[in-house]
Amino acid sequence: MSVYLHDIPLDQAQQRLIDALQAAGLSGPLGEEEIILDERALGRVLAAPVWAKISSPHYHASAMDGYAVRSQETAGALPTSPLSLQYETQTVYVDTGDPLPEWANAVIPIENVEPLDEGGQLSGGERYPQAIRIRAAVAPWAHVRPMGEDMVATQLVLPAGHTLRPADLGAIAGCGHDRVQAVRKPRVAVIPTGTELVAVGEPVRRGDIIEYNSLVLAAQVNAWGGEATRYPIVADEFEEIKNTVAEAVQTHDLILLNAGSSAGSEDFSAGVVESLGELLVHGVAVRPGHPVILGMVSRLPSPVPIIGVPGYPVSAALTGEIFVEPLLARWLGRQPVQPHEIDATLTRKMTSPAGDDDYVRMAVGKVGEKTLAAPLARGSGVITSLVRADGIVIVPRGSQGIPAGDAVRVRLYRSPGEIEQTIFAIGSHDMTLDVMAQFLAARQRRLTSANVGSLGGLVALRRGETHFAGSHLLDVESGEYNLPYIREYLPDVPVRVVALVGREQGLVVARGNPKGIHTLGDLTNPELRFVNRQRGAGTRILLDYQLHQLGISPESIPGYPQEEYTHLTVAAAVASGRADCGLAIAAAAQALALDFIPLFKERYDLVIPLEYADSELLAPLMDLLADSEFRTMVAALPGYDLAPMGEVIAEVK
Amino acid sequence: MSVYLHDIPLDQAQQRLIDALQAAGLSGPLGEEEIILDERALGRVLAAPVWAKISSPHYHASAMDGYAVRSQETAGALPTSPLSLQYETQTVYVDTGDPLPEWANAVIPIENVEPLDEGGQLSGGERYPQAIRIRAAVAPWAHVRPMGEDMVATQLVLPAGHTLRPADLGAIAGCGHDRVQAVRKPRVAVIPTGTELVAVGEPVRRGDIIEYNSLVLAAQVNAWGGEATRYPIVADEFEEIKNTVAEAVQTHDLILLNAGSSAGSEDFSAGVVESLGELLVHGVAVRPGHPVILGMVSRLPSPVPIIGVPGYPVSAALTGEIFVEPLLARWLGRQPVQPHEIDATLTRKMTSPAGDDDYVRMAVGKVGEKTLAAPLARGSGVITSLVRADGIVIVPRGSQGIPAGDAVRVRLYRSPGEIEQTIFAIGSHDMTLDVMAQFLAARQRRLTSANVGSLGGLVALRRGETHFAGSHLLDVESGEYNLPYIREYLPDVPVRVVALVGREQGLVVARGNPKGIHTLGDLTNPELRFVNRQRGAGTRILLDYQLHQLGISPESIPGYPQEEYTHLTVAAAVASGRADCGLAIAAAAQALALDFIPLFKERYDLVIPLEYADSELLAPLMDLLADSEFRTMVAALPGYDLAPMGEVIAEVK
Repeated sequence: MSVYLHDIPLDQAQQRLIDALQAAGLSGPLGEEEIILDERALGRVLAAPVWAKISSPHYHASAMDGYAVRSQETAGALPTSPLSLQYETQTVYVDTGDPLPEWANAVIPIENVEPLDEGGQLSGGERYPQAIRIRAAVAPWAHVRPMGEDMVATQLVLPAGHTLRPADLGAIAGCGHDRVQAVRKPRVAVIPTGTELVAVGEPVRRGDIIEYNSLVLAAQVNAWGGEATRYPIVADEFEEIKNTVAEAVQTHDLILLNAGSSAGSEDFSAGVVESLGELLVHGVAVRPGHPVILGMVSRLPSPVPIIGVPGYPVSAALTGEIFVEPLLARWLGRQPVQPHEIDATLTRKMTSPAGDDDYVRMAVGKVGEKTLAAPLARGSGVITSLVRADGIVIVPRGSQGIPAGDAVRVRLYRSPGEIEQTIFAIGSHDMTLDVMAQFLAARQRRLTSANVGSLGGLVALRRGETHFAGSHLLDVESGEYNLPYIREYLPDVPVRVVALVGREQGLVVARGNPKGIHTLGDLTNPELRFVNRQRGAGTRILLDYQLHQLGISPESIPGYPQEEYTHLTVAAAVASGRADCGLAIAAAAQALALDFIPLFKERYDLVIPLEYADSELLAPLMDLLADSEFRTMVAALPGYDLAPMGEVIAEVK
Repeated sequence: MSVYLHDIPLDQAQQRLIDALQAAGLSGPLGEEEIILDERALGRVLAAPVWAKISSPHYHASAMDGYAVRSQETAGALPTSPLSLQYETQTVYVDTGDPLPEWANAVIPIENVEPLDEGGQLSGGERYPQAIRIRAAVAPWAHVRPMGEDMVATQLVLPAGHTLRPADLGAIAGCGHDRVQAVRKPRVAVIPTGTELVAVGEPVRRGDIIEYNSLVLAAQVNAWGGEATRYPIVADEFEEIKNTVAEAVQTHDLILLNAGSSAGSEDFSAGVVESLGELLVHGVAVRPGHPVILGMVSRLPSPVPIIGVPGYPVSAALTGEIFVEPLLARWLGRQPVQPHEIDATLTRKMTSPAGDDDYVRMAVGKVGEKTLAAPLARGSGVITSLVRADGIVIVPRGSQGIPAGDAVRVRLYRSPGEIEQTIFAIGSHDMTLDVMAQFLAARQRRLTSANVGSLGGLVALRRGETHFAGSHLLDVESGEYNLPYIREYLPDVPVRVVALVGREQGLVVARGNPKGIHTLGDLTNPELRFVNRQRGAGTRILLDYQLHQLGISPESIPGYPQEEYTHLTVAAAVASGRADCGLAIAAAAQALALDFIPLFKERYDLVIPLEYADSELLAPLMDLLADSEFRTMVAALPGYDLAPMGEVIAEVK
């Protein structure tokens, strides 16, 4: 087979697909269907313009509860010189919306009328009066909704290609339609392939991969107006995949063939496409996601496009955004989704391969007047980076990266309103922050935290790039937490230091402590492997201080250079056997059912610029510190001391 | 009955409802249900946080196709001094995603390895080699996705209250869940009442009102995450309405009782609420929409809130936005919808009742650097004002209006991207513009036109508030169209004048011309009633010129002061019998099946500032002038001459 992965630029890849679609007569809306005008029409796209069939109102309607009159017969009425009009011949009562009698051309609101009984006295208003008395003239067509006020028969009400919103349904009904011509929804087959895959909900063994790309792709397709069919998992067998695709094209407009799109020994997608039709593209210079396949599978009367979607979940989801959404927009005759774009300041430099358009997920927050974008984990296997992403920055081909502090254009995944309610936390990680995020979500705040360690948090504070920093920096000389560092690192940033928790640091070891580890002294055992925290982390500073006190050289500890960024990932390294022990908090050990050898107590503080300490944005967070439900939940985590919570340690100006 | 309409401020009304909900234990999420994690979970709101059940990856996984090794055994390998590793004991082949053998701690990508056969020669790569040769050392954990790289078991993946997006579904599946706890959808009964109502699709007679508010409200409820039930129309009978409500509360969480919420003779809503429970609010100081009713209907174990929704369609839809959406957000435990807000310049002054919060629908466009907001029709019966609205401005209580040119804060209904693609047209109306709007919609442009007449268009051009103006201003001295006016009104705005169409102006009369109208001279007949166009309209200038030529005094024409803003509404006035004739274009007469007496030919031009004439924004519009499909469609309208279409009449600098 002549299948070989060769990346081409994104625009060229898209153009090849468009050309093939055009050649096949598939470049516009797929077809239309008449649908009933009810609430299920919401979100459908109009296949044809809606022209008003009848006017609205379709007769002259009273705009008020009142009396229909001939305006010329009211001329001369004055407060001091009232006029009477006989009921039935000169006036009749009309409710709002009632048609005007043929002879009438105005309405006098009920509150401006004195109803009269037979004797010319004011009547009780129980039934229609004999006459009415008025004390002001009324202009022609006053308080009347003339025929066609809203829509005139034959006028354009909505253009083709319009996606129906609630009010549109009302307007279409109001001008006389009970059906609409909607664009047929594109039918999309999502076929997961891979012998190592197991379906969601099935037992998972070592080496199994939970198959959820088809779930993400199907949800994307449905959200964009298509109709997805999820196929069962197909094993990595050329013939089986080929047969499944050949069957799917009979009833679908598009095939998404997931994974097997690279060039490995079990990557059959390109071969399947070649055997069933034409391979247009194998490899696109985008990151993540480059082993994308584009092709056309032969079928009568017209071929069916197929997209080979890469297997890594972030690559798969981005392939959906880059290739599937614009194709569905084209087939639905609507405009492609246009994310809102904002300018933001990059918090960290990004390096990027010069040959690719690089789609980098970003956390976005507004700190003071600055809108900031912090790059999230780049791995294409890290779907939580998409979950956490507030937006995306595209580093174009030809660029090798962007320095920190540069302006970047962010395509937002969230509304700007949500960004404004985001509390940006850069600093040390503590599991209490996860609990806090959970509680803040119910209080109209989003907590976005970047774990860069305590020192990294102070640096972010100095740059004005975070609303607060979690910090547990032990000053080895004074034995004091945080304040000496704050004085050194933040001479120009007045802050309030508020205690969050006291907590225990200790050694996380495998269940049952099989290697018999008890002290920092044991770490030099060459049979053991330690896992460390990154430089600048409070835990790392604590470790280095204690090692120094004990006269233990870091070089003597196997695994010392191996760094992790959070307590939980340290524990995960131990749980997986990648390391025998690491220094972390008790809660991390319990989370993964590991043993914990307590060694030290420390205080974890929130360092908050005074500028934000009493802000409306942070108010719900400060309230939490006294919230009994929150405290109960934190207290349930092991190794935490809640006594200091909320205590103002100092204001450093 | 003690029911009396008394408006209270919006915030007080909302607070009364919230207090009643709190007293009834209904102020938070309604309950939860376990749902299967498939694509139907999209858009559901999490009732509980999602904590990772297993790590992802849940084992150390190869990140590449390659060979698993012990990194320490690769130490010392150099390009000039390669190293060999024995297959099975020192290395094994792994595909991307495969688990690493227990003994391995790194992967060497396949492209960096030379496979060797039994004799130590390079092997063909057909099957697993006997050994591999490497020319570089590899660091521990290189090309490995360590366990927990994406999610560590027990970590917070998503908070409660989060609305599920496609990638979220993947993350939840990836950390071991096959179900989620979702907030139960609020069930909302929508009950239309009114003897004058007919259901969508039923025959419509004079006085009938097509009932579509329930359609709009149900679609809103569904779009906001609720589950709407539309009830059949209930006649204006107190007992019947009461029984329907009493039945609906048994199976619903909220009742929307449409119309009958005012204080007229057939307005039973307030009485029904009082008879079944408690009337909290009757009348809210918002415009449109003030006769809103809020109440609680008694039921065990807890009462059911009821909202009496006003009957006018714009009032009904805004009542949905103001009262129903926040309530559903509360019950779903999600944040209320937050429209994106932008600052814009008001194009026309708005007057507003001081006592009400006034919600004014706006057309929004960006002309040059200015973002402009033009108030749309204010009538609460004009649902097309909601259809056309790009956003809304709230004029708060206490303000009597806002002068033109002031900055206003607009809550957008569209994405800012759509606003950027909006062509703003202020000026004279021609039906060709409707056709143009329809064609532009398929070309990623939205045409928003405000019909203020030809002169009004030139004024808008002078103020820099429109991308072009349609104009057909006859200069009575030179007989020339538009150019003399442009020279006078736009001395500082260089423009290009491009002909759109030639067209016939004439008298629109009832079918069969029963009154025998043939010339402008006939208009003075006191038995006839004329309908005029507004001052500044090209058609009005044409009429006044011709009357002057004929020596006819405007005062001698009955109906001359009665003004309409478009050709179609002039024709509608004739069709409805409100007038006997008017001056308009032939297409307007045909649209409403009226007769047309041609009198004059004229040219209708597009006046485009040079600044925009060659812009990317207007390019699709300029292309249309040469588009055969567009020309065919315009040619199908009666009374149009396409010969001049696209001709550049002049550039006036």
